[in-house]
Amino acid sequence: MLERIRIVLIGTSHPGNVGGTARAMHNMGLEDLALVAPRCEPLTADTISRASGADHIVHGARTAETLEQAVADCTLVVGASARSRTLPWPMITPRELGDRLAEELAGPETRIALVFGREDSGLSNAELQRCHAHVHIPANPDFSSLNLATAVQVLAYECRLAWLAQQEAPAPDTEPAQPLASHEELEHYFAHLERTLIAIGFHDPAQPRQLMARLRRLTLRSRPERMELNILRGILSATEKQASGGTPVDRGEPDPPA
Amino acid sequence: MLERIRIVLIGTSHPGNVGGTARAMHNMGLEDLALVAPRCEPLTADTISRASGADHIVHGARTAETLEQAVADCTLVVGASARSRTLPWPMITPRELGDRLAEELAGPETRIALVFGREDSGLSNAELQRCHAHVHIPANPDFSSLNLATAVQVLAYECRLAWLAQQEAPAPDTEPAQPLASHEELEHYFAHLERTLIAIGFHDPAQPRQLMARLRRLTLRSRPERMELNILRGILSATEKQASGGTPVDRGEPDPPA
Repeated sequence: MLERIRIVLIGTSHPGNVGGTARAMHNMGLEDLALVAPRCEPLTADTISRASGADHIVHGARTAETLEQAVADCTLVVGASARSRTLPWPMITPRELGDRLAEELAGPETRIALVFGREDSGLSNAELQRCHAHVHIPANPDFSSLNLATAVQVLAYECRLAWLAQQEAPAPDTEPAQPLASHEELEHYFAHLERTLIAIGFHDPAQPRQLMARLRRLTLRSRPERMELNILRGILSATEKQASGGTPVDRGEPDPPA
Repeated sequence: MLERIRIVLIGTSHPGNVGGTARAMHNMGLEDLALVAPRCEPLTADTISRASGADHIVHGARTAETLEQAVADCTLVVGASARSRTLPWPMITPRELGDRLAEELAGPETRIALVFGREDSGLSNAELQRCHAHVHIPANPDFSSLNLATAVQVLAYECRLAWLAQQEAPAPDTEPAQPLASHEELEHYFAHLERTLIAIGFHDPAQPRQLMARLRRLTLRSRPERMELNILRGILSATEKQASGGTPVDRGEPDPPA
């Protein structure tokens, strides 16, 4: 379970925080680190010092230009956030995150990303809207900004507790789950949806009125399976053909392969 | 409750850890710090940097020569320990510590000390034996030594959760919920959806292939709000006009009535 949890750091400024994150991860049994557009050289003497023996995690870290690239294969993306901003978004506590991890990772081909923003400004609204849920570490309202590596420690600790609890519990007797859509598949769907809404005259990017954000929130809440997303994309393709004056098209294939 | 919890650091070597501890404490609402026989100057530029605005806690810290002096007024003393050593000792998890704090601090004139040892060697056996109980943060057995300030963070986090639970669950900090769509509204939506899918040639009621059932399941899972359903119906209307050869229509109104 722990090997399918990825820690993603966006725009980190201080190498010491990369090292501290690696130490916190290795302490809790997490090994998969991704660095998105770091604003510092990630591997310095400070990194090694704070990693205190866990620098193999920094050496093995993947780097990416964008959040999308770093989480393309993840089925659940959770962003660490002080609070939801312009648009309320599903918000969970670190403890609820632990419960949710165990459920999520019981399914096949699932992978989870926990995303942490910049030391000075956190995650952008665009980044937050790419997350299925936000997790907020309860803190002193007058002094609520945790050190980055320390915030990673708290969530990694909850991951480890969830894993330990699962080691003791019998496997739940549930239906075999269908594979969920990955982040990349969802983003392709949202891009297709936006094109289609423009084509039918429902959406004007010059006056977005949070339409796409609202549709993202609704869709992400339902945790679509891959097959369901294929149906939705079939509907979009059929709609696009109508909008371009085409004739009714072949229906998509909603049934799974035998 | 939180004001009666003291963090005690014994023989700390690195000023940065004193600063990081102050930050973690202030983040979680703890303010009472004691330093026992520090092996460094506690207040340096490193301290201030890592404290990140919480250095008043270091300025206000009491210093003591011995553990006994630092915890003399405490009714419960809990030592952070990798494991009990020569003599088995009552051992609790951080979560159990949280439960115990609430019980303990319900009594009058109680005060709790959480004691942390040296970066390199932890607490001595003599120190451990002055504690009522030991608390062990579950960690990777191959890499179990947490950074000092990070270990303080984990226990302070459990203190804060216990305190929050004790606040008798005041009104949760959630957004006022939007009205959910009613059953009737959902059924109107599904009927509209089916008409539209037929109009664009995606759905053939003579060969339903469970298409509508799959779309129902997906939609119901997301518990749509009324306003979200209005957006979806606006999209369907725009799609229908396209299918009937119409021109792009006015966009619907995704915002709720004022």
